[in-house]
Amino acid sequence: MLIKDVSLLQSGQLLKGRDVLIQENRIVRIGRDIKKENEDEIINGRGKLAIPGLVNAHTHLAMTLFRGYAVDMPLMPWLQEKIWPLEARLTAEDIHWGVKLGCLEMIRFGITCYNDMYYFMDETALATKQMGLRAFLSGVIFDSRPEFKGEAEAFIRRWKGDELIHPAVGPHAIYTCSEETLSWARETAEKNNVKIHLHVSETRGEVEDSLKKHDKTPVEYLESLGLLSSRLLAAHCVWLSEKDIGLLAQRRVNVVHCPVSNLKLAAGIAPVNRLLAAGVNVCLGTDGASSNNNLDLFEEMKMAAIIQKNACSRPEALSAKEIWDIATANAYQATGLALGLAEGSLADLSLIDLRKPWLMPQSNILSLLVYSMADGVDTTIVNGKILMREGVIPGEAEILDKAQERFERLTS
Amino acid sequence: MLIKDVSLLQSGQLLKGRDVLIQENRIVRIGRDIKKENEDEIINGRGKLAIPGLVNAHTHLAMTLFRGYAVDMPLMPWLQEKIWPLEARLTAEDIHWGVKLGCLEMIRFGITCYNDMYYFMDETALATKQMGLRAFLSGVIFDSRPEFKGEAEAFIRRWKGDELIHPAVGPHAIYTCSEETLSWARETAEKNNVKIHLHVSETRGEVEDSLKKHDKTPVEYLESLGLLSSRLLAAHCVWLSEKDIGLLAQRRVNVVHCPVSNLKLAAGIAPVNRLLAAGVNVCLGTDGASSNNNLDLFEEMKMAAIIQKNACSRPEALSAKEIWDIATANAYQATGLALGLAEGSLADLSLIDLRKPWLMPQSNILSLLVYSMADGVDTTIVNGKILMREGVIPGEAEILDKAQERFERLTS
Repeated sequence: MLIKDVSLLQSGQLLKGRDVLIQENRIVRIGRDIKKENEDEIINGRGKLAIPGLVNAHTHLAMTLFRGYAVDMPLMPWLQEKIWPLEARLTAEDIHWGVKLGCLEMIRFGITCYNDMYYFMDETALATKQMGLRAFLSGVIFDSRPEFKGEAEAFIRRWKGDELIHPAVGPHAIYTCSEETLSWARETAEKNNVKIHLHVSETRGEVEDSLKKHDKTPVEYLESLGLLSSRLLAAHCVWLSEKDIGLLAQRRVNVVHCPVSNLKLAAGIAPVNRLLAAGVNVCLGTDGASSNNNLDLFEEMKMAAIIQKNACSRPEALSAKEIWDIATANAYQATGLALGLAEGSLADLSLIDLRKPWLMPQSNILSLLVYSMADGVDTTIVNGKILMREGVIPGEAEILDKAQERFERLTS
Repeated sequence: MLIKDVSLLQSGQLLKGRDVLIQENRIVRIGRDIKKENEDEIINGRGKLAIPGLVNAHTHLAMTLFRGYAVDMPLMPWLQEKIWPLEARLTAEDIHWGVKLGCLEMIRFGITCYNDMYYFMDETALATKQMGLRAFLSGVIFDSRPEFKGEAEAFIRRWKGDELIHPAVGPHAIYTCSEETLSWARETAEKNNVKIHLHVSETRGEVEDSLKKHDKTPVEYLESLGLLSSRLLAAHCVWLSEKDIGLLAQRRVNVVHCPVSNLKLAAGIAPVNRLLAAGVNVCLGTDGASSNNNLDLFEEMKMAAIIQKNACSRPEALSAKEIWDIATANAYQATGLALGLAEGSLADLSLIDLRKPWLMPQSNILSLLVYSMADGVDTTIVNGKILMREGVIPGEAEILDKAQERFERLTS
């Protein structure tokens, strides 16, 4: 596949008239006037900007099916009265269409890889592969469902080595998993050499309870169990002590900031600037669409930047460049995969149509992507395969219809 | 014009299969199976939701030309080194294309009316009329340019009574306008029966300076000058005392909340919940695209709601319904015009394509509009005239090209 005459970003500047040659699932050459040889597929990139694929580093994708169903509620009634009753009725068929609906949306927002924790992971993996996205998938683990551990181990065995699906271990949180379960998660992840995906210090209550129960913050407690490492993707990390931040940096933990979900659930604002200053690898996630309520990582970038500026009382805090790196380079580091718009990388990228009023005038392109982007992802490619071309995703109408059907069944 | 088979919102529920009959610039009938008579224009509304036009109640539209040019800077260097030097070079031609670029964007986001304060108001009015939007326009007034007062009076005389353009008086702020200038603004507005558009208590520094200089908060100072009334659209109102909030309620001032700009410039979070509880008429604005950096009132609704939830530590604070009313009914009250999707109202409305992944499943439509909307405004109608139809705005390409040209001239 050859993308002709496209613009690229380099050090915040627009380089026009470049070609990108993709062979199988890799970017093999980027340059000027690459000759077409036997390329089966030529994409006209004129007027478009190629960006590396974005990574949604924390989500619960099948919950896209619950989008908008219950909002503006306190956490516990929301879970107890609305979400858990629906979750109790979920079938594999619901998961299939919920995941596909979420994949549709992510493809439209230039997200090429996501990190998920939920139920029915085999269904999630199959639906994700059918949609063509890359994913890290963990079946959620908590003590009240002990059989999930065996299922998670079987899931890892089945999917380890897949080209697109990276199985991982997903203990839910320290308040739903015992010390034994957390230690099992660490051992299972080490034995299989996979990631761990965990909610950490999302609410003030979680930290207070941990201090009462363990005489340690959640981060200190996880350190004592050997959970802190570059293998860990720790979602939220809103309530952190200076010591916590030091531990996260020292152990090279990947922290996944989810600003919109944290604000919407009134959980607080993570200390992203202090995390970055300490050298922590911060990534970005939308969380599930039932607490966001979309899967738009551009919106997440803007929100992350502006709430941090306000929280620090410094408009220069968390710049467009820093937040862009968080959504791309930092996330690539967390995955351990060769991602990015460079020769030799996996071919995960999007083309953005720059002829949108909110992307004009074309001044500082990074600032446009971070602060003005609304719509304009035109083409999305994952693993060298075109998932959306000029705004068209094959099969979209069926997915929208089926998602609506499944939602109506669940709530009937 | 007849819109056939469209969905409408009523008390948060979707009513399907309705028709909307528009004659000249008014909505004359809404119902089922309205017969086509001699309607020159039939719009197929199937699969679409008609919403009343949104009002962007505080902006500086020509500054759309400066979008993305300078970001992540402290306020004073940003103004002194970047914005003011560009403003000093602005010509009428720049304003023309900057305003048209802003109008394009607002049409695409379903904004049908805006309230602006800037330079070159005749050019702004002409460009706005050419684009077909409704606007309240004030030439900015400050003491260092005393000739602006006469120009503002002439502008009001020229445009008073226009169908789309409502001239208003725009003293910039209490720190740039003397007591005499503010009193002139009040008198001029009263004499001509027009609105007043003013920045109020945007930063903590403004309040501290006012206390030092006048021994009054900005709101108390404006009260002492008789500026507080339902005639006033007071932008920002971030730093308010309880007494200020009481005065704003008592005098029926319209407060324009601009959450994204306030966060991006690290100005703070306005106490919207306390304002609403006191009965203040709160509206919503994007501010200029140089401090936002877009003109997306859907994004503004979401941000307003979620930052207020977090600030109050209550996920149920500022609900989708409340913020929707802020962006519509409250704004209509501030304008004093017969706006809204109702028989007898001015025909300012949009159609939203509900077949977008982020608007599925169709559960609670208001929560989708407020928390998930990304793109999907399909058709925008102002004063009975179609400005965008199925995503197409006539002349868009020329506006994008000219805006780019003018930006390059300004920054060359």
